[in-house]
Amino acid sequence: MAAAASPSPAGPARPGAVRAAAQGEEDALSALVALAHEDLEACNRTIVARMDSPVSLIPRLAAHIVAAGGKRLRPLLTLASARLCGYPGEAGGTRHVRLAACVEFIHTATLLHDDVVDESELRRGLASANAVFGNKASVLVGDFLFARAFQLMVEDGSLAVLAILSRAAATIAEGEVLQLMTQNDLSTSESRYLEVVKGKTAALFAAACQVGAVIAERGAAAEAALAEYGMNLGIAFQLVDDALDYAADQSTLGKTVGDDFREGKITLPVLAAYQAGGAAERAFWKRTIETSEQRADDLAHALLLIGEHRAIEATLDRAARFAAAAKAALAPFADSAFRRGLLDAADYTIGRAR
Amino acid sequence: MAAAASPSPAGPARPGAVRAAAQGEEDALSALVALAHEDLEACNRTIVARMDSPVSLIPRLAAHIVAAGGKRLRPLLTLASARLCGYPGEAGGTRHVRLAACVEFIHTATLLHDDVVDESELRRGLASANAVFGNKASVLVGDFLFARAFQLMVEDGSLAVLAILSRAAATIAEGEVLQLMTQNDLSTSESRYLEVVKGKTAALFAAACQVGAVIAERGAAAEAALAEYGMNLGIAFQLVDDALDYAADQSTLGKTVGDDFREGKITLPVLAAYQAGGAAERAFWKRTIETSEQRADDLAHALLLIGEHRAIEATLDRAARFAAAAKAALAPFADSAFRRGLLDAADYTIGRAR
Repeated sequence: MAAAASPSPAGPARPGAVRAAAQGEEDALSALVALAHEDLEACNRTIVARMDSPVSLIPRLAAHIVAAGGKRLRPLLTLASARLCGYPGEAGGTRHVRLAACVEFIHTATLLHDDVVDESELRRGLASANAVFGNKASVLVGDFLFARAFQLMVEDGSLAVLAILSRAAATIAEGEVLQLMTQNDLSTSESRYLEVVKGKTAALFAAACQVGAVIAERGAAAEAALAEYGMNLGIAFQLVDDALDYAADQSTLGKTVGDDFREGKITLPVLAAYQAGGAAERAFWKRTIETSEQRADDLAHALLLIGEHRAIEATLDRAARFAAAAKAALAPFADSAFRRGLLDAADYTIGRAR
Repeated sequence: MAAAASPSPAGPARPGAVRAAAQGEEDALSALVALAHEDLEACNRTIVARMDSPVSLIPRLAAHIVAAGGKRLRPLLTLASARLCGYPGEAGGTRHVRLAACVEFIHTATLLHDDVVDESELRRGLASANAVFGNKASVLVGDFLFARAFQLMVEDGSLAVLAILSRAAATIAEGEVLQLMTQNDLSTSESRYLEVVKGKTAALFAAACQVGAVIAERGAAAEAALAEYGMNLGIAFQLVDDALDYAADQSTLGKTVGDDFREGKITLPVLAAYQAGGAAERAFWKRTIETSEQRADDLAHALLLIGEHRAIEATLDRAARFAAAAKAALAPFADSAFRRGLLDAADYTIGRAR
């Protein structure tokens, strides 16, 4: 794992280098965050209150990852979707806050398990929970947060919400397993890669948005539109993530650059470069990705090939199209501050790679 | 991990040696299994049908552990509890079957995660799923089965059932984390050890039984009685398991003898022997359990000390008292074939160590 702590390759040979937006910086999400500020604060209080347990290691480990921050993008989507659909909030109800917390718990549980599965050492710029507390505790606290999410849903009492989020949870696991099956396999098709992305990431974005429409009781068409928005947004988000893994500055990315390469993960930058390459390049990819024989300067060479074939740009182009589809899905809704905020969120997704 | 495949220590130095009942053998559970035979078959069909997924690794891995058998003790408890409470079954309804499958999915998910956490190599006499498919797949398929369990509950549509099983799932995780915290710690009190046992094992037994009463709509008193039965039964079951880990023949146990010792798990046999021992013995336990410095013949010596202090007998005595409490909890119910079967199940729990 020594490689994980090594600096990202420096020097001029990084065409297509992009940088992730630093936390706290003004960005396209800021307006939506400001709009939902009070709801987000309430959501954070719910998260902290409900990750508690008499078993002290649970809140300690959960705090490490939950309280470390992150954008709270998924709960923000639940809050904003509910408000877009006219959910009253504040005096009118707190279901959106509780369910937003529940969405974040599911997300956090998957992060904890992901980091175990990926043997990651960094998460959101800090040592990952598994690196600090061990894999065992990460698996079990993930299970706890997952169970707690369902307890929150039961307290909310909507079987419709339970159906959406339990299905999303199963779909996430399916996406993660599919990712495991495609790992080290350069014959993976782009459509299969997109299946992975939809499952592991976009399904929860879609569910987070749909739940907002459900509690606002806006009907099936609004639910479908917001699920569509979330699904496309989630795909765009993950594609940009996959681009950043080969293109970001490590200091702003909050995780280790080149992780996907070292793990032999099949993502669009690699698929695009591999498919565009000649015999020698394909042999390079097969050695490094399929047989996992990696040398010290392989990542730099991979970045060079990805740059030559403009694979980052191709990935970001695809992401931009999904972000546009996300925006288009909001067409049925009348103009409002929350609608504008959600449109901006699509720009934010893409803007992380500027 | 070579130790896991080594034979159990042989020779005359195994006082208190007991043996686990072999699968398929006539035992105290047979009558209940026969009574619930058709329901169990239907439950097995539901399990196989609902562990399916287009992601082929999921049913393959799930089949490895689910279809490998085991006693289906927890789903049997749901089925029998429902019938004890007058749930019609067959023509009258199939909720008990679906919820029994759901209980087994939760159990299977925790087994998959346990084996990753414990780095086990054997489960039910076969190579464990993590040994065959890897830790990553085991974590993720566990997540899938857990999510699928909640999908089944949502299909059933009872928020009361969802509340019971989501709370049980959170309690299981808490018990497992508490076990992790007590690992290698000989100052663990017996009451703390019992907290671990209640959480990691008995909570699901209790929930499995309670759910049966809920769907039969027999009221709060019947629910409480069956939860009480299940809790005590589960504690007895785990205490016997902990005894068997130091006392069974490996061939009939279906897992590696001495696993708990090698992992430094704090269980009653160790606590009893440690607390009864003099300075030299305590030094031995501290070296082997607390600092995990184990030599080839340490397990044999541990078994000797456990035998001298009759720690297995003490553990089984405690188990017998919990089994008796389980039986007593069934007092409110009139005599019936299912009541007799559940009383026998308490004997079965203890009888595994004869």
